[in-house]
Amino acid sequence: MTETNRQVRLAARPEPGPFQPDNFALEDHALETPGDGQFRAKIAYVSLDPAMRGWVNAAKSYVPPVAIGDVMRAYAVGLVDASNNPDFNVGDAVQGLFGVQQYAISDGRNVTKVDPGQAPLERWVGGLGMPGWTAYFGLLDVGQPKPGNTVVVSAASGAVGSIVGQIAKIKGCRAVGIAGGAEKCRYVMDELGFDACVDYKSGHLAEALAEACPDGIDVNFESVGGEILDTILPLMNVHGRIAVCGLISSYTANTAPTGPRNLRAVLTQRLKMQGLIVFDWRERIGEAIAQLGAWHAEGRLKIREDVRTGGVDAFVETANLLFSGGNNGKLVLKV
Amino acid sequence: MTETNRQVRLAARPEPGPFQPDNFALEDHALETPGDGQFRAKIAYVSLDPAMRGWVNAAKSYVPPVAIGDVMRAYAVGLVDASNNPDFNVGDAVQGLFGVQQYAISDGRNVTKVDPGQAPLERWVGGLGMPGWTAYFGLLDVGQPKPGNTVVVSAASGAVGSIVGQIAKIKGCRAVGIAGGAEKCRYVMDELGFDACVDYKSGHLAEALAEACPDGIDVNFESVGGEILDTILPLMNVHGRIAVCGLISSYTANTAPTGPRNLRAVLTQRLKMQGLIVFDWRERIGEAIAQLGAWHAEGRLKIREDVRTGGVDAFVETANLLFSGGNNGKLVLKV
Repeated sequence: MTETNRQVRLAARPEPGPFQPDNFALEDHALETPGDGQFRAKIAYVSLDPAMRGWVNAAKSYVPPVAIGDVMRAYAVGLVDASNNPDFNVGDAVQGLFGVQQYAISDGRNVTKVDPGQAPLERWVGGLGMPGWTAYFGLLDVGQPKPGNTVVVSAASGAVGSIVGQIAKIKGCRAVGIAGGAEKCRYVMDELGFDACVDYKSGHLAEALAEACPDGIDVNFESVGGEILDTILPLMNVHGRIAVCGLISSYTANTAPTGPRNLRAVLTQRLKMQGLIVFDWRERIGEAIAQLGAWHAEGRLKIREDVRTGGVDAFVETANLLFSGGNNGKLVLKV
Repeated sequence: MTETNRQVRLAARPEPGPFQPDNFALEDHALETPGDGQFRAKIAYVSLDPAMRGWVNAAKSYVPPVAIGDVMRAYAVGLVDASNNPDFNVGDAVQGLFGVQQYAISDGRNVTKVDPGQAPLERWVGGLGMPGWTAYFGLLDVGQPKPGNTVVVSAASGAVGSIVGQIAKIKGCRAVGIAGGAEKCRYVMDELGFDACVDYKSGHLAEALAEACPDGIDVNFESVGGEILDTILPLMNVHGRIAVCGLISSYTANTAPTGPRNLRAVLTQRLKMQGLIVFDWRERIGEAIAQLGAWHAEGRLKIREDVRTGGVDAFVETANLLFSGGNNGKLVLKV
């Protein structure tokens, strides 16, 4: 066998800012054969996610950092091409934390079989992948929306936010998005079916948000933090829930942020603010995939991926689109 | 009947800062007799609480503001001296939201009978009153401490904090206090039995707190906010709970606070931060009173009241001790 497995390995921890080419090493290794109880998947698509930026930092976080010399962590989808595991047959489509490489060996733990007949392969690391699960568990388990509730979603046109709002609508809520610019707001309302979308670049965020939420806010699915969160807090209803999925506004800052300034609302309105990382639900990812897949098949969940080519060689420049805002929909790399 | 009922009524909403004498009016009204299903209580002690400062503000809060002209809201304890309610007999000791006055008429809703044999009357609006219930529900329902957990209590020598730490000890936790000054810290450790207490005036809060919490922090019962909360946040363990009982650091500020700056910990550690107002448990206050009373009778719960005399006439100057730090233990006014 002369085939090789091209991998992206972490070579050095990045300085603050986007990835640099010398942070990673491209390596060709001999293709491994699966051992007892293992299978091998030929990777078709790799998911590129903002969380990757945190995974390569040495700082204490929700998962151990990727070690120097290890294959870069990533969700990916592919087809089983060799198997010594009775639960996985050659030809099965599988999704898991396979890393940025052409082939992955797995014992099947935390791997989900997906149905390419229900949605194309790339979609299982796109809208039906990590962003979808994050939206599903974050909104439903943490946000606990009830029919008639008003759900405010920041970064509403993003991979996660776009799905949060659509699930909120499925659950009988009023979905209000916050997005940057008139075009994104149009997409959020006209394509995704949110009830309203507020343009935070308009200069009138507070007034526009209050107007879009005449009954106050019951659930906030928060990905931004900073001024956006400070604008939302005073509008929260008693016993409201804030699911903190991200605080993008602080990721690139060199100094600690100065907010939220309106935390007093947590006390007076008895809010529950809870951080969420989808890894905490890894045992239930199959449930999310099944439900999201069903809603998608019924036409109730619109999803947009931005699939880029170039294979694992193009990892660094493609992943950096996440930080420059250069992608248009959930970013996926074709291997 | 020529007896009168002297009452403190709200005359004008205070400006920021302590109460002013002309914010309230002392009025003598003819003593009312209870109607059908009502009883009358002769008030013995009134509870003075920091929450009173919020109750007289017009701003949206967890209860409607006290209306101009109404009797000032307050918990109080007294003895039934007339009754047309079969559940309340003359001579019963009762505790409820009776207001700052000498006599109160009540239909018995949200009134609790207390046992003067188990603890003296003043204690039922002291440590076994609102501060005790706040500690009880806030720590147990919101904080959800498990045996072996580390519980950090800010304002540890205060009316609420002192009880939170003692309940934490009863529940098998490590109790770590934060208080201002060596004397308060000694009291918290030597008298109340906390495992450690950190002096925030020492200038080394972050180092001292980290040292006092070698296994991190699982539960934070927070009454201060600001820099104290910012010091606690990075030490919180995964899935930690922050019960927000107060944010004193922001109450007297004229400008919005600039923190917390370390909110990112809510995300990375998946913390649950929840505001609490004891009114939300008003249906279960009997449970708290029974349990706190039992612990107190067993000698497991030490309580210190600061009982002031002068009757309802002394309301303003006595209540203002809360904001100047002039009280030493839970502040109670003898009527």
